[in-house]
Amino acid sequence: MTFEFDRDTEVRAAGSGRYDAELAPGWVVGGGVNGGYLLAVLGRAVAAELASAVPDKGHTDPFSLSAHFTSASVAGPAYVETRLVRSGGRFSTVAATLLQEVDGTPVPRIAAHATFGNLDRAHDARSDLEAAAIGLALQPPTLPPPEECVESRDAPPEFKKIAPLLDRFGTRFDPASAGWAVGEPSRRGLIQGWFRLADDRPLDAMALLLVVDALPPVTFDLGLPGWAPTLELTAHVRAKPAPGWAIVRHQTRTVAGGLFEEDCEVWDAEGRLVAQSRQLALQPRG
Amino acid sequence: MTFEFDRDTEVRAAGSGRYDAELAPGWVVGGGVNGGYLLAVLGRAVAAELASAVPDKGHTDPFSLSAHFTSASVAGPAYVETRLVRSGGRFSTVAATLLQEVDGTPVPRIAAHATFGNLDRAHDARSDLEAAAIGLALQPPTLPPPEECVESRDAPPEFKKIAPLLDRFGTRFDPASAGWAVGEPSRRGLIQGWFRLADDRPLDAMALLLVVDALPPVTFDLGLPGWAPTLELTAHVRAKPAPGWAIVRHQTRTVAGGLFEEDCEVWDAEGRLVAQSRQLALQPRG
Repeated sequence: MTFEFDRDTEVRAAGSGRYDAELAPGWVVGGGVNGGYLLAVLGRAVAAELASAVPDKGHTDPFSLSAHFTSASVAGPAYVETRLVRSGGRFSTVAATLLQEVDGTPVPRIAAHATFGNLDRAHDARSDLEAAAIGLALQPPTLPPPEECVESRDAPPEFKKIAPLLDRFGTRFDPASAGWAVGEPSRRGLIQGWFRLADDRPLDAMALLLVVDALPPVTFDLGLPGWAPTLELTAHVRAKPAPGWAIVRHQTRTVAGGLFEEDCEVWDAEGRLVAQSRQLALQPRG
Repeated sequence: MTFEFDRDTEVRAAGSGRYDAELAPGWVVGGGVNGGYLLAVLGRAVAAELASAVPDKGHTDPFSLSAHFTSASVAGPAYVETRLVRSGGRFSTVAATLLQEVDGTPVPRIAAHATFGNLDRAHDARSDLEAAAIGLALQPPTLPPPEECVESRDAPPEFKKIAPLLDRFGTRFDPASAGWAVGEPSRRGLIQGWFRLADDRPLDAMALLLVVDALPPVTFDLGLPGWAPTLELTAHVRAKPAPGWAIVRHQTRTVAGGLFEEDCEVWDAEGRLVAQSRQLALQPRG
């Protein structure tokens, strides 16, 4: 069986660091394509380029991917231009731009840099012991069990028509921060819940690039529905996730000048922080 | 009078999007050059390129700058290669790489993307009213007055010899999180204090790129002194700062796998959040 995520983020080498992709309509939301899905396409192109350019280093895992969104993507053909910036012993950095042809002209959708390494090697015994001694590990929020949470796929059909993306996820929202779904936002700027992919594809480091942008914009919880275009999003993958339900939290702390930051944390089923991201996005115009 | 910051971050157009710079020895710390200073050099090159490429747009201010650090810079000649990725009505995005020649070979130090716009226009009356109605604005910590705080320039001379950087800043550390300076770290992973430049140069949007990386690594407060090399740092400038003392807070919440994230917030003298950053850095080896 091929999972949706693997099928839809596939890239094909086209020579000179170029990788072709097909942005699948299932990841569309409103007037664009989900940003996390696009990050995963970029991530797979970077991984392919590193496997080709520095095959012996084993730099297979994203540690940091920072993406500047320059125009809205649409479903259909796309390609990623990659260029190895520098490769060291522990990390390699690649410049990667996602483009789509519009009337025969290449239009950059996302300009990114990615630093990859090897997450298995990062977690050597010594550093984990040191971290345990320091005792600093951000803890997940306490949520009601998944069966008592609000399932995203239960959204009304007219909503799912503009957001087919909802069918890709098995998100269960914490009822305490899901009031926006029935017109009663908590106005705390917080959305959190359990996360898994709808077809139960296990999460891995690459899929975490998707997970950090998989919830609705946190502005929904501020009574500001509508699309919140991302200017920039940086994701850090901190560890490979254990199997099972993940917990995802999105939060904003400052809305000003028409912009807001959205911080995201992802914990795996064992309560370990596995990814963080922050994005700067445009406040919806209501 | 020319302030140190302006003199030392100056760039000179060298054609085809290249800008030459001279990394000044005053910003050296340990085996490298301060990251925030390098971000400011990158920022000035991006601003110069935008002034040249799209002069009518007025995209003079950094909104987001994300930087992947690929090797340690040294004092001396350097240059920034810039390339306009995309320019829209509100924002322009530029790719910018800082390089230094080593034995005649260009070595990339930092690979970055920057999205610039106009902060004065961002703060239109409507969006500020909306934000006020929402009531979300991260508040600064309460600190003792500057005169009761620990001045960074009071460090012992042998320490300042390896960190001439200390003389650039007028940082006053909150005594509650400055115990690391006398071997008694609080072990909370938090360093905060008042900030100004030593020569009292007023802070502006470009200088905030420096401020987000102007405190010692937060690992000092975890009993892990030593250099903490940055893998990636993204800064968001949220508003132009009012004159006077700024407040800066650095904090980490998760140390794992030999890496930690360091979040930074900067507030201006009126208590407004003016910049945020997050970096992923390597845990010092002690």
